[in-house]
Amino acid sequence: MMRDKTILLSHGSGGSLMHGLIKGLLIKKLGNPILEELADSASINYKDRLAFSTDSFVVSPLFFPGGDIGKLAVCGTVNDLVMSGSFPEYLSLSFIVEEGLQLKILKKVVDSIASEAKKARVKIVTGDFKVVERGAADRLFINTSGIGRILKGVRLSYKNIRPQDKVIITGNIGEHGLAVLTKRKELDLGFKINSDCASLNNMLIPLLKSVGGIKFMRDPTRGGLATTLNEIVMSTGLGLNIFEENIPVTEKVRSACELLGIDPLYIANEGKAVIVVEKGSARRVLSLLKKHPLGKRSAQIGTFTSAPRKRVILKTIIGT
Amino acid sequence: MMRDKTILLSHGSGGSLMHGLIKGLLIKKLGNPILEELADSASINYKDRLAFSTDSFVVSPLFFPGGDIGKLAVCGTVNDLVMSGSFPEYLSLSFIVEEGLQLKILKKVVDSIASEAKKARVKIVTGDFKVVERGAADRLFINTSGIGRILKGVRLSYKNIRPQDKVIITGNIGEHGLAVLTKRKELDLGFKINSDCASLNNMLIPLLKSVGGIKFMRDPTRGGLATTLNEIVMSTGLGLNIFEENIPVTEKVRSACELLGIDPLYIANEGKAVIVVEKGSARRVLSLLKKHPLGKRSAQIGTFTSAPRKRVILKTIIGT
Repeated sequence: MMRDKTILLSHGSGGSLMHGLIKGLLIKKLGNPILEELADSASINYKDRLAFSTDSFVVSPLFFPGGDIGKLAVCGTVNDLVMSGSFPEYLSLSFIVEEGLQLKILKKVVDSIASEAKKARVKIVTGDFKVVERGAADRLFINTSGIGRILKGVRLSYKNIRPQDKVIITGNIGEHGLAVLTKRKELDLGFKINSDCASLNNMLIPLLKSVGGIKFMRDPTRGGLATTLNEIVMSTGLGLNIFEENIPVTEKVRSACELLGIDPLYIANEGKAVIVVEKGSARRVLSLLKKHPLGKRSAQIGTFTSAPRKRVILKTIIGT
Repeated sequence: MMRDKTILLSHGSGGSLMHGLIKGLLIKKLGNPILEELADSASINYKDRLAFSTDSFVVSPLFFPGGDIGKLAVCGTVNDLVMSGSFPEYLSLSFIVEEGLQLKILKKVVDSIASEAKKARVKIVTGDFKVVERGAADRLFINTSGIGRILKGVRLSYKNIRPQDKVIITGNIGEHGLAVLTKRKELDLGFKINSDCASLNNMLIPLLKSVGGIKFMRDPTRGGLATTLNEIVMSTGLGLNIFEENIPVTEKVRSACELLGIDPLYIANEGKAVIVVEKGSARRVLSLLKKHPLGKRSAQIGTFTSAPRKRVILKTIIGT
């Protein structure tokens, strides 16, 4: 099957071409005993509280500095599960492929999925593969859904947030969105910005297990850090003071943003978490985060307040 | 928000327009306490063996006689879960929408999802909404993933199938594929064929609970009944005799197929199951199926054999 060089409509028709592709590519690279059953559903043993999450990935271009749609599809759902205080275990994987896509592109994406799933220690246990006519999709879309085991004793919810609680961001912001944008627009900045795209479970699960007082986590993806912080204050009804000078932004991201006239606070991240933690645990959380390669640039950036309600106040360096 | 008449790119950007759409449309119509949390993942209590399934829906046209992409997205994943011998409980729902889609189309699809989810008694507990640029997708794609609770004592697997086991189909074949095809090509057959699109759990779960000897189930979707039967014999390594005259096909489907030069055996179904059952239980299974509105035209269509291996033999009316 692998001799065919592009994806045909019949690769998605349920016939032998599709089965060749599934067995020759997907099972070979992603295989595990549950997936290999090729049943309509995966069968899983469970006796805990679960988190269940879904995300569709539509990034263009498919490949960008620091990642690709495959890596993103694993990280994105893994991180959503982690944000709910769960240990990510199983992913589903569903492709929508445009007829005519080169098979080598699909292979590269599947390699990337396999490699990131291994890194994040999640199993891909069920999947689906659809082909649509040329022009009916932009090359390749991926949906991953995921199941995680909620950690015992952990209940993350914005409802737990109180005045004086601290906000931590786990590193530099703005990198993913800029990496994709500069690649898409073929902008030459004179330097390269890599997406921060990463699975955060290996850093955050041990943290959740070892430190109390973590109340809420969310990954600032679409809409960036500003949108995430706004969502949190709207949900809690509290106020939030953010100290702009504490928000970690690299020089590269800062200059790219100036050049492009955009605000790094509104740019998507794919390997960062906003963590809300009670005052007394903030220092411990920060110090543990900084020991992990993905958290070296973690910073405390703000404090919840009882007033003004539902407002994020950005305290800038000149004090406004 | 609902005053906007078409979907804009900013409906998918994570900002207030997206939140308006999610709260004003999706939560309003699909809401339940788990979904309303709007967390990165849904939190679910579990202590059983689970089935986990995923499916992306890319049907064109979005609306066809007997159903639409929304109904299909619920039925499809519900049925995949049932085929694994599980009681479908929770669905995720992820949209990929083309910029410019009319909001009334999205609303109609969401209504249809809400209505079918209610009928199938499943809860939509987590979701995602992406908008892509005009031309980057064909109007609307939907992914649903699902979690079901595997019934105690039920272990459906092709590994259980033995010679002499009987094959039952739960009704008329070919209707879904023809309904979509005739609508897409705007063919006037002089009569209408409705898709069989239906959630099968209300018929099949009681059956699984009350009759022993059911060994395997699969829904003959893409590729139709022929492809499904072929997959089963390839997996088991057994042979299978199918009696063509026993396969239920309506006169309408038969004439449409003759007119179009296609074989009903290869046409997709969305509300049928192939059930493999041991000889001694076949009569009981058939009689129970026939009592259900979705199973009235159920029929026993074949028998597994020890030879020829990996072959489906179609016994036609003239005996070849």
